[in-house]
Amino acid sequence: MMQLHELTATALRAKLAAGETTAEAVTQSCLARIADLEGSIHAWIHLAGDEALTRARASDAGPAPGLLQGIPVGVKDIIDTADMPTAYGSTLYQGHRPPWDASCVSLVRAAGGVPLGKTVSTEFAYFAPGATANPHNIAHTPGGSSSGSAAAVAARMVPLAFGSQTAGSVIRPASYCGVVGFKASRGKHCLAGIKTLAHSLDTLGWFARSVPDIALMRSALLGEEQGLGDSSSHAPRIGVCRTAQWNEAEPSSQQALAAAAERFAAAGAQVEDLDLPPLFDDYNASQQRLMNYEVARALAYERIDHRNEISDVLCANCDEGLAVTEAEYEAARNHGRAGRHAFAELMQDVDILLTPSAPGEAPAGLAATGDPKFNRTWTLLGVPALSLPGHTGQQGLPVGIQLIGRFGGDLDLLRWGQWAEERLR
Amino acid sequence: MMQLHELTATALRAKLAAGETTAEAVTQSCLARIADLEGSIHAWIHLAGDEALTRARASDAGPAPGLLQGIPVGVKDIIDTADMPTAYGSTLYQGHRPPWDASCVSLVRAAGGVPLGKTVSTEFAYFAPGATANPHNIAHTPGGSSSGSAAAVAARMVPLAFGSQTAGSVIRPASYCGVVGFKASRGKHCLAGIKTLAHSLDTLGWFARSVPDIALMRSALLGEEQGLGDSSSHAPRIGVCRTAQWNEAEPSSQQALAAAAERFAAAGAQVEDLDLPPLFDDYNASQQRLMNYEVARALAYERIDHRNEISDVLCANCDEGLAVTEAEYEAARNHGRAGRHAFAELMQDVDILLTPSAPGEAPAGLAATGDPKFNRTWTLLGVPALSLPGHTGQQGLPVGIQLIGRFGGDLDLLRWGQWAEERLR
Repeated sequence: MMQLHELTATALRAKLAAGETTAEAVTQSCLARIADLEGSIHAWIHLAGDEALTRARASDAGPAPGLLQGIPVGVKDIIDTADMPTAYGSTLYQGHRPPWDASCVSLVRAAGGVPLGKTVSTEFAYFAPGATANPHNIAHTPGGSSSGSAAAVAARMVPLAFGSQTAGSVIRPASYCGVVGFKASRGKHCLAGIKTLAHSLDTLGWFARSVPDIALMRSALLGEEQGLGDSSSHAPRIGVCRTAQWNEAEPSSQQALAAAAERFAAAGAQVEDLDLPPLFDDYNASQQRLMNYEVARALAYERIDHRNEISDVLCANCDEGLAVTEAEYEAARNHGRAGRHAFAELMQDVDILLTPSAPGEAPAGLAATGDPKFNRTWTLLGVPALSLPGHTGQQGLPVGIQLIGRFGGDLDLLRWGQWAEERLR
Repeated sequence: MMQLHELTATALRAKLAAGETTAEAVTQSCLARIADLEGSIHAWIHLAGDEALTRARASDAGPAPGLLQGIPVGVKDIIDTADMPTAYGSTLYQGHRPPWDASCVSLVRAAGGVPLGKTVSTEFAYFAPGATANPHNIAHTPGGSSSGSAAAVAARMVPLAFGSQTAGSVIRPASYCGVVGFKASRGKHCLAGIKTLAHSLDTLGWFARSVPDIALMRSALLGEEQGLGDSSSHAPRIGVCRTAQWNEAEPSSQQALAAAAERFAAAGAQVEDLDLPPLFDDYNASQQRLMNYEVARALAYERIDHRNEISDVLCANCDEGLAVTEAEYEAARNHGRAGRHAFAELMQDVDILLTPSAPGEAPAGLAATGDPKFNRTWTLLGVPALSLPGHTGQQGLPVGIQLIGRFGGDLDLLRWGQWAEERLR
């Protein structure tokens, strides 16, 4: 029999509703798992075990349950919490205590969720890594910037955890850690109380070990339960999109994509190649230019008043951003918009795209978090993205595949994601 | 001879560059003016006179000047400052000291600007007013939510001050207070460190007493000087847009528009009526629905954990937002996007629109801040907006006119704004 910390949020919800366990027992199981593994994984920058247990006990004693009643949740350290320190992955803000909960944290609490602690983020959710190791092999990076959240969910420390994506900070670590990662459509969820990295790209995301769990968190954030329905009835039309970076993908990632396409076709999906038009050839470059321009502004205080306390790599990225003129910035924004129009047309013929989540297995070493080259385009498009595990590379590490939906069609993407997840089992 | 506090930022910049005055003298003049009038105007929630004087003296002793070197600036209280309290217009956060400067504050400091203090905001930049009175008649509202910034610039307390607009929080108070108000294109400037009210609508703006001053602040924020050039060479094509709310405008506002149109035509502008297509008939309603949905999420912590400490009107707005379903919210977002496409086409035939800034003169009483009905559409469109003073209503209070530019065309709007400002003198 599986232990409580191994169960999905959806399974825990059913058990709790049936009175087969208590929120306190669930929280204790997660805390015990963390005590076992945290010494090697380093997924957490702050644990609030006592507060979580208090909240769990209150949940057990409380009134009608919310969608996440009694479910432990990890919170990325760039997301504000009123009762836990929030350091934004930077030594500069060590011990900082925000006066509020971020919108997403407040909505999780309102739904009965139990924030368990803050998970390790790279510095301000950009490139300089934290201490987190990949649970599948601690000599490898878990990816970033949502490193701790991806690792914590992968290590069965917590069933759900928040991340955020500006380039590839949810989908890439999900792929590296072998969990389900979801980046919402841009603007769908409020980012109030989340440290801004690049204002026109930052997007909320979260990790789980099943697509229904992803949908459960989404329902909690929306404040309305939206089920995935029965996904077995019919199969999607899938465009296989290798992207301009395909030749830079490792065999493991190419194989993961091919294997998934084959499975989906065998299950009745209409699977066809779909190449992005030439407009997208340098779309990644526009994302990067736009991002660095905005990072240099969002972190103006840190780079000007505390330059010695931020990393060299962040300084270098800010300097790149400062070299971009307003005209170049507007050109990148216009490129982004032109892509969105073109993409909407492209998606009239298919339901979802199938594309790599990451270049391959998690790279060795903890000094870097891997390359978001298979994520930048989708983040600039603002479309919802879902990484599903299932494939294993030559080094024995997980390799995900990425499904892309229409802008705003987050629920549809999750419905097709559930279909795909069931076919990949 | 004009006193220093009466001069525009552009005039002060020239005087400072020529060595005809010092930053310290400028700051002292503004502080003296504040000491004279603040007892009746209540524009400031926090004054940092000593710190500003220290900074001004350092500026006088310092190296090569920035674009705002030695220029005092007011900062709306929803904008974070590391060295001043930031209470977001709410008693809930009284005395709160953020760990950083907001992006816009940091960029102003980097350009040599001297933050003088925090200006009164309505509660969280929504409707519940602060104590600020209209400098033209203290029995009347200055408008909101950027009440203190508009009043401080109007009262010659400071030449420049930041605001923000989610519905009509810059353009309306600018009109009521008889100053120049500018709302940038959405997404043009970073909002990091500014309390989120509605994430897809919030936009940075600022107040000044001339269009070149507005452009000077813009250059400082961008980090590149962009002059307005010679605006006398040719005249714009102007579309006069009365909007679906025209019949709700008071005679003063209708007259201000007609008088401006006449002046502009006489000065050689091509002036023609331009009606918005039917798509825009309920565009204001979509803005309001979208706003309340997002406000209820952005202020989730405040409305859930501190419901007794927020105003009844804010609670009511949040409740309205919670009654909006995700499908209705997406419909409003789609309406917003459809409008943006339609508007871009519409603007191919004209350079700017001329439209009312507000329903009329500032209403009597300080219990409400007036109606943003002439602003909601432009904010949802995300296009740049400029309010110019010049007209006076029957009660002797100022009435502005509003110029609207193309999305992203902020500099072009300011160039035409300079042309218009000169014609209105």
